[in-house]
Amino acid sequence: MKVDNLIGERFKERPSDCTIESHALMVRGGYIKQVANGIYSQLPPMKRISQKIERIIREEMDALDGQEILMPVVLPGSLWQESGRYDSVGSELLRFCDRSRAQMVLAMTHEEAAVQLVRDSAKTYTRYPFMIYQIQTKFRDEARPRAGMIRVREFTMKDAYSFHTSQEDLERYYARCLRAYERIFARAGLPEVVAVASDSGMMGGSISHEFMLLTPAGEDTVAVCRECGYRANVEAAACIVRNEPGQEDEPLTAIPTPHSSTIEELCTFLHVPVEKTCKAVVYQKPDDGYVIAFVRGDLEISESKLTALLGCELHPAEITPESGIVAGYIGPVGLPEHVTVVLDRSVRGAAGLVTGANRIETHYIGFDPARDCPNAEYHDIAKIKDGGICPCCKKAGISLSRGIEVGNIFQLGTKYSKAMGMQYTDENGNLQTPVMGCYGIGVGRLAASVCEVRHDELGPVWPVSVAPWQAELCCLRADDPAARESADALYRELQNAGIDVLFDDRPVRAGVMFSDADLFGCPVRIVVSPKTAAAGQIELSTRDKTLKTNAPRENAVAAVRELLAGLAGDLEKHVPSRLE
Amino acid sequence: MKVDNLIGERFKERPSDCTIESHALMVRGGYIKQVANGIYSQLPPMKRISQKIERIIREEMDALDGQEILMPVVLPGSLWQESGRYDSVGSELLRFCDRSRAQMVLAMTHEEAAVQLVRDSAKTYTRYPFMIYQIQTKFRDEARPRAGMIRVREFTMKDAYSFHTSQEDLERYYARCLRAYERIFARAGLPEVVAVASDSGMMGGSISHEFMLLTPAGEDTVAVCRECGYRANVEAAACIVRNEPGQEDEPLTAIPTPHSSTIEELCTFLHVPVEKTCKAVVYQKPDDGYVIAFVRGDLEISESKLTALLGCELHPAEITPESGIVAGYIGPVGLPEHVTVVLDRSVRGAAGLVTGANRIETHYIGFDPARDCPNAEYHDIAKIKDGGICPCCKKAGISLSRGIEVGNIFQLGTKYSKAMGMQYTDENGNLQTPVMGCYGIGVGRLAASVCEVRHDELGPVWPVSVAPWQAELCCLRADDPAARESADALYRELQNAGIDVLFDDRPVRAGVMFSDADLFGCPVRIVVSPKTAAAGQIELSTRDKTLKTNAPRENAVAAVRELLAGLAGDLEKHVPSRLE
Repeated sequence: MKVDNLIGERFKERPSDCTIESHALMVRGGYIKQVANGIYSQLPPMKRISQKIERIIREEMDALDGQEILMPVVLPGSLWQESGRYDSVGSELLRFCDRSRAQMVLAMTHEEAAVQLVRDSAKTYTRYPFMIYQIQTKFRDEARPRAGMIRVREFTMKDAYSFHTSQEDLERYYARCLRAYERIFARAGLPEVVAVASDSGMMGGSISHEFMLLTPAGEDTVAVCRECGYRANVEAAACIVRNEPGQEDEPLTAIPTPHSSTIEELCTFLHVPVEKTCKAVVYQKPDDGYVIAFVRGDLEISESKLTALLGCELHPAEITPESGIVAGYIGPVGLPEHVTVVLDRSVRGAAGLVTGANRIETHYIGFDPARDCPNAEYHDIAKIKDGGICPCCKKAGISLSRGIEVGNIFQLGTKYSKAMGMQYTDENGNLQTPVMGCYGIGVGRLAASVCEVRHDELGPVWPVSVAPWQAELCCLRADDPAARESADALYRELQNAGIDVLFDDRPVRAGVMFSDADLFGCPVRIVVSPKTAAAGQIELSTRDKTLKTNAPRENAVAAVRELLAGLAGDLEKHVPSRLE
Repeated sequence: MKVDNLIGERFKERPSDCTIESHALMVRGGYIKQVANGIYSQLPPMKRISQKIERIIREEMDALDGQEILMPVVLPGSLWQESGRYDSVGSELLRFCDRSRAQMVLAMTHEEAAVQLVRDSAKTYTRYPFMIYQIQTKFRDEARPRAGMIRVREFTMKDAYSFHTSQEDLERYYARCLRAYERIFARAGLPEVVAVASDSGMMGGSISHEFMLLTPAGEDTVAVCRECGYRANVEAAACIVRNEPGQEDEPLTAIPTPHSSTIEELCTFLHVPVEKTCKAVVYQKPDDGYVIAFVRGDLEISESKLTALLGCELHPAEITPESGIVAGYIGPVGLPEHVTVVLDRSVRGAAGLVTGANRIETHYIGFDPARDCPNAEYHDIAKIKDGGICPCCKKAGISLSRGIEVGNIFQLGTKYSKAMGMQYTDENGNLQTPVMGCYGIGVGRLAASVCEVRHDELGPVWPVSVAPWQAELCCLRADDPAARESADALYRELQNAGIDVLFDDRPVRAGVMFSDADLFGCPVRIVVSPKTAAAGQIELSTRDKTLKTNAPRENAVAAVRELLAGLAGDLEKHVPSRLE
């Protein structure tokens, strides 16, 4: 491929709407172009990266005995009704009607379609276990697409579904798949991606893991224990709080607290530490019924935990005068009957707390949950905090990091197979319901994640395994006959040697050519100029700027090959072996 | 891959809803499974065939300097408004709103998105010509999906878009692309696909071709001239009719024609040949305005020609009493003013015709269009008929055949680039509008077409280039240690030799194994049985049943390879060379 023919443009100015580096570089380098909010076209460099990532994924899925298939993007709503998700999933599931007024959805995941595909044929235990996978377009109607290819509405995803005759068999396979994921990320140049325990969310099932690339640009928060190595999404990590015993017998007393509708104002006004407060967060259910969650003032509610507890979607509340709820002054004592109250475990065992009195500009002091809310149940609905207690080793070793979720795997159990009536006959002739796992990777998000952590100020520094081209050949002054001849011949030689090469022979200044080359980010660069051509040399360098050397022109292909092999070897060192 | 693990099932009974062989075989062989009307999942054999077809397409597109990209499935309605197609295309374009109530469409073709992708960067003539292509999911909300993968709603398509600085350059490229298409079909095992002139329909532009596989199972009709070789879709072929001069001065006379509302009844009742009648077909425009098309009684209206003439979609009419139209007795004389009347050229120059009198059970005889409709204009709105006059050589050599359209190419001109404001600066510094071409192939339809003409009563006979596996290894009586050992070793040897092999070692009867193998349709079959194993032999045969022989076990891989090379060579003979 010649740069001169390549569609797309490259430019210096950082687009103003780009909040993270990978987004800015992919726009500036002619990798992607926005078509609508959260919807992009991929230009050749991005498409080539995607294809290389897809090849790695295919190899790892095939090594797990995966069978590649293709399910539809447009699914009938009736299929999602079978599982119950047509109603339970929020508006990120895009629903519409076709010309015959049938309800359809744009598939954002394919558990239902996977069960539909195999339930008629996998009717006896001898057919198990098996795994099917596809690499395919998905659509998720995100409320807030952001960060370029990191959170989009339309994306290419590898999704896999495994079917087993026992939980034990699923767990064995799940472990192999987890390892395959570690291999995929390492092969793609991201060995630092870590598996963390996660919340299963709308997928259902119990055990699940997310694969997180820890980077400040991430939109997820991961709790990591410095003491024991425990890792989990904050939405999934149990939040453990040890309350100091309160002063006994402090009576519940209402006091005026003017202009103190926030926790900060309240603590300042009363000179109490934030840990001695009990704060409220208000939500509404799909039927608009109010839910008020109480948590210790220094903690945050995990909406994900709360949603899982209540079994329904929640949205931020609109507090009406008729609701009887006094925003800014809400407390657990004396709330209207119609409100669903949930107390976090962080207020259990505490006493002498400050909390709202459900009257304007009034709070209670001396709140003792055990005494004042004798029938209360406590649930884990708070996010673990930095410096918090590790749910695994119980030491205060938790630190929080931002992360990009580049993959996820779920032990689904029988949620879908049962709801959709999938059964097989076991060895004893009895009907059984298969156990399922599912395994996802977003291809574009993985590409963007690689860029996010493998770039410098000049552009992406693509790992050799996923680079759009392995090498770029730059011919400076192609109007010089010796340079032109040497470069043209070398281009053919490299192509004949099976090296994936981009050729820039445009009549542009060296500065333009090299800044474009930095934006293409090819691991190896070969420069031919009138000077090197006359000397029978080429200049050879790596995109990571660690090497720049001259080599004899006649050994050029061998030298490039050797460099590429070295880079591939460096990647390979970080790839764990397969589990069998 | 082992058959034992392969998902999907195979069965003997022809499904009752399958009207064509390829559909029946693909369902019976576990290739596809319906998810909704016109929406299918692809099981591994179908996915593998698709991938092989896609590889052939990629190679040919790359050889045309095509740049692979990926555009979205979901496009903003605003993009289609720019070209005017948001309103002009009928309900096969699926329109819906996203969560923010923005109008979106499911892309059925990507001219608009292609222009959007390149219009900002292809701003100077030096960037031209270029071609971009993608292989991607499309959705077309067909009113009547049918025939399995032949006419579906969701499908995988290769679509390519080329951009040029002149019509001449487009024509040169178009010829290269036409040849590349012939190569693709021949490489996929369908050298008999022919390019025929076609109607450009909703795509716009002037010159276009369809690639037709002539088969009775096709849903298109192709006119082929026995005399000069002219080929065109009946919707695109000019219909030429020579009328004998009518008897002069026969007066226009209304006569009672009871119970004669059809042309057949009328001709029987009046004892006139059908060529001496002028019949009416009634449509309605999107605004429900009536259109009545008149054509000689022996011909049929081409809705495609009529739509192109009127520049709007038409639907079958609902004739209300208020319309003033008398169904069954319609004629060109005395129709209500509000009706749009179109006369086909076939009634020009005729006289003494029978036609409706616009009164119940009444017709005119002696109708002379030139005399009775003096202001009429005549248009070509009829379909060419079998035995008709060739528009090219003017001889009566036309014969009609059914065909499946497996690809199409269009010279679009500036329709999209102009409407969407795409411009470049030419050598003289003037702004110009680029000329476009577009080029489509349906991957699934091509696979089904191959099956449609390459099968026998037992199953598909896949060409080696697109077969799901190149070879199938059958181990009869895998419980026999010698057979098992020989087959297992041979499976490994074949895999190591890079041969794409399916292995059936199930404990099933030979009849079941072989009928399944016939449904898989792999070009080469290797059978290992206790008898052949003991004799140090294998049995080797081809799916087309032309060869069945024994070969020494130790030469098995070489023998298979030789057979495959022979089959590939046979295909290659029919592949035309590339145009440069």
